[in-house]
Amino acid sequence: MTDTARTIRVTVWNENVHEQREEAVRARYPEGIHGAVAAGIEENLKGQVDVRTATLEQPEHGLTEEVLASTDVLTWWGHAAHDKVADEVVERVQRHVLGGMGLVVLHSGHFSKIFRTLMGTTCSLRWRSEHDRELVWTLKPHHPVAEGVPSPIVIPEQEMYGEVFDIPDPDELVFVSSFSGGEVFRSGCSFHRGNGRIFYFSPGDQAYPVYHHPDVRKVIANAVRWVAPAESARDLPRLQNCPTGWYENADGSEARA
Amino acid sequence: MTDTARTIRVTVWNENVHEQREEAVRARYPEGIHGAVAAGIEENLKGQVDVRTATLEQPEHGLTEEVLASTDVLTWWGHAAHDKVADEVVERVQRHVLGGMGLVVLHSGHFSKIFRTLMGTTCSLRWRSEHDRELVWTLKPHHPVAEGVPSPIVIPEQEMYGEVFDIPDPDELVFVSSFSGGEVFRSGCSFHRGNGRIFYFSPGDQAYPVYHHPDVRKVIANAVRWVAPAESARDLPRLQNCPTGWYENADGSEARA
Amino acid sequence: MTDTARTIRVTVWNENVHEQREEAVRARYPEGIHGAVAAGIEENLKGQVDVRTATLEQPEHGLTEEVLASTDVLTWWGHAAHDKVADEVVERVQRHVLGGMGLVVLHSGHFSKIFRTLMGTTCSLRWRSEHDRELVWTLKPHHPVAEGVPSPIVIPEQEMYGEVFDIPDPDELVFVSSFSGGEVFRSGCSFHRGNGRIFYFSPGDQAYPVYHHPDVRKVIANAVRWVAPAESARDLPRLQNCPTGWYENADGSEARA
Amino acid sequence: MTDTARTIRVTVWNENVHEQREEAVRARYPEGIHGAVAAGIEENLKGQVDVRTATLEQPEHGLTEEVLASTDVLTWWGHAAHDKVADEVVERVQRHVLGGMGLVVLHSGHFSKIFRTLMGTTCSLRWRSEHDRELVWTLKPHHPVAEGVPSPIVIPEQEMYGEVFDIPDPDELVFVSSFSGGEVFRSGCSFHRGNGRIFYFSPGDQAYPVYHHPDVRKVIANAVRWVAPAESARDLPRLQNCPTGWYENADGSEARA
Repeated sequence: MTDTARTIRVTVWNENVHEQREEAVRARYPEGIHGAVAAGIEENLKGQVDVRTATLEQPEHGLTEEVLASTDVLTWWGHAAHDKVADEVVERVQRHVLGGMGLVVLHSGHFSKIFRTLMGTTCSLRWRSEHDRELVWTLKPHHPVAEGVPSPIVIPEQEMYGEVFDIPDPDELVFVSSFSGGEVFRSGCSFHRGNGRIFYFSPGDQAYPVYHHPDVRKVIANAVRWVAPAESARDLPRLQNCPTGWYENADGSEARA
Repeated sequence: MTDTARTIRVTVWNENVHEQREEAVRARYPEGIHGAVAAGIEENLKGQVDVRTATLEQPEHGLTEEVLASTDVLTWWGHAAHDKVADEVVERVQRHVLGGMGLVVLHSGHFSKIFRTLMGTTCSLRWRSEHDRELVWTLKPHHPVAEGVPSPIVIPEQEMYGEVFDIPDPDELVFVSSFSGGEVFRSGCSFHRGNGRIFYFSPGDQAYPVYHHPDVRKVIANAVRWVAPAESARDLPRLQNCPTGWYENADGSEARA
Repeated sequence: MTDTARTIRVTVWNENVHEQREEAVRARYPEGIHGAVAAGIEENLKGQVDVRTATLEQPEHGLTEEVLASTDVLTWWGHAAHDKVADEVVERVQRHVLGGMGLVVLHSGHFSKIFRTLMGTTCSLRWRSEHDRELVWTLKPHHPVAEGVPSPIVIPEQEMYGEVFDIPDPDELVFVSSFSGGEVFRSGCSFHRGNGRIFYFSPGDQAYPVYHHPDVRKVIANAVRWVAPAESARDLPRLQNCPTGWYENADGSEARA
Repeated sequence: MTDTARTIRVTVWNENVHEQREEAVRARYPEGIHGAVAAGIEENLKGQVDVRTATLEQPEHGLTEEVLASTDVLTWWGHAAHDKVADEVVERVQRHVLGGMGLVVLHSGHFSKIFRTLMGTTCSLRWRSEHDRELVWTLKPHHPVAEGVPSPIVIPEQEMYGEVFDIPDPDELVFVSSFSGGEVFRSGCSFHRGNGRIFYFSPGDQAYPVYHHPDVRKVIANAVRWVAPAESARDLPRLQNCPTGWYENADGSEARA
């Protein structure tokens, strides 16, 4: 918590496929979904973040070892091209998350290779894109990710995501949404994996202007700040198998690793 | 709980490599580690289980779709040949666990592909094989997996496993062990993934006769019984993405999946 | 799980105040709310349960040491007279729950002394009694408490309960409800305290015929079965401070408790 | 995390009984246990904290409404006089914790009225005071409370605390200790209750100079920083029952609380 003075280095990742294929999406997100997400983070964390973007079509999807090594928080949006993401890059991102890099997974990113790899489950859910009204309710008003947003957040039109959401029990359940159709969904969940923090937030879709919604942008910015590793955790060695125990051999002789 | 009358169909899997390579291990486990584990389950759950074994060298490692479809609980032991297990078989086992098949992971199985896949973390830990005494303490005396064993279970000689054990927080922490060297380890952990229950139990090693220890055998049998799916869960459809929401469209018209 | 053959001894507790004061409630629940709850448990667990009832106006509220000592599962309904329940009885019930007796807390029981004492929080929530439709969604289809009921359970008219529900994070979140007004609520939660299991289930109210709803009755019966202690846990000594450690003194001499 | 610039207002509470009765304790803690705890917090959080102390013998035990209303974090040490703490003061402290005040409970404070009230369980454990060596192992190296201390922390002489520790499952298990006798204990646990954070840390006793141990002092200071409410949470209304739901009546008309 002493490290809030420092700048959080954020990489906003987007597959950037719908924007190129569909005029309507391009009109909705002229800078791409990554552009809208990045703008929301910057406007809410002025002077606290250094934000860059990366997309699928770039070499190594823009997620080289160098980029990840200098990233404190990665945000992930994908939908139409999950299978186009190289397994090698997925393993690299997983290694960095387990080593302490924060990860914010957005909406349809629930089905991304990286989220499914970190969860170990199908991450399947129910869905229906028919302009439902979504209400995002805060279960933990004291949680930093819920700071400064009303309960509920009212999203006039949005894709419905419904339970059963096949994930491990989250470490913290911060938001639960209801939809016009009556469905419910765990829309804001935190997970710890290795040294890394992960936050999943479901609102947002290529077919609705949700990433322009000020409360949604505020939550994403809060999540970026919350998953950012502490200064002290940023340079932690990656966890690895340790050839000997710490303390002493059974005979009492020292055997520090 | 109405299904305890039925027989639990158990498949005990073992890589069966040390037993073939090392005379000492063969002498310790003449029927193989799978033979000792199977015998312990049968002696503790007489008339309640139907136990078969499967090993790495068999076609598809003995874990065909047919075998898994008729398995209620799979136990897993591996160490020297984790990388020899085919990814296709790992995916198949994962799918069955998420669909409701119980899984009991033993000792060095912490580094198996299937456990790492289900956990999403490195599953690394500290270790030292120098004949430490292990004490296995019960944290949840009411838990079915701890039924009928003393606290602590005293294992005169065992490999040390120590924290940090890089796993997601377990749903339940049933056992914690201490070792002669002073180390501690979360030696009995439960996890739910999809419709499946998973129990990890660390005591047991090819270099020590731990699978002949009556309390260790009792815990493994308890775990088999506890991860076994309820009758009602055994035929659950595998979780999958649902094309529409359940209840109604935003306009109120019915749209059941 | 070997103890399902035995009979589960259930005590259904009800303050039984609204039924005496209000004609409409008496008409809705001619046998009292306790009568309706008891009937639902008996019809769903024929031959597996021995059900008796107890009410506020009885000596010691019908919850003497003898009654509790011969109770496997206690269900609790209260609303208008929480403060009339004697602290001595609350302490007695708490002691039995921590010793292994199961507890099922229903609806407005969220504000009972016993639930607040076991939770340590205010257990406050939002509410509105205006004939909302409640949909009870299952998050854990494999959970024994969700066995045999549709998702969602549709309750045509019910009091709205909404978040923030001020409870500790439940060990398992089995059901989440939505209401016509758009609110959401964690309507089915499990907790472990000491050796005892607790299940909170929110549907049900004196002003609506919810305890006649077959799915609600099924869930309550499932919960009774699920919180019932295993045979092996029924006679566990109450947890207590232990005057010495288990294993050995620092000098190595034995010092078993 | 934006609030680390502000000063954290800490009140260190101590029953201060052993120090007055026993020469040896007075010699060990000439400023009282509260003096040693306060000094450890101040030396580790220079310029970040404003620390005062309060003790049992003061009016209202030094914990008036005014004192608590201007306290961000309360630390609690008690042992010989738990029953001397007025229930009215316990209720007051509970209300402030649920409203957002942080609480750090130390060692024998496990049996304090306030901790037992917040946990809802007996909080019993095993103990033996025979100069055991305690090793405090970190399970979560990335956790802010574990920042800057070795794993294990080596405490040459300490009272043994052993499982079963009768508490609800902690939200996070940060430290587990082993003792010379072979016992294990969950020595560092976090809990969220209402808007408040609670951290229990077991090392420390009147009969050993543990509160002079630099690593123990560091952990206590880390815990104070970690349970301190965010600026945004400090003025949160105390949670309370809400007379109406938030959103709309079943007929769609507005009915904001």
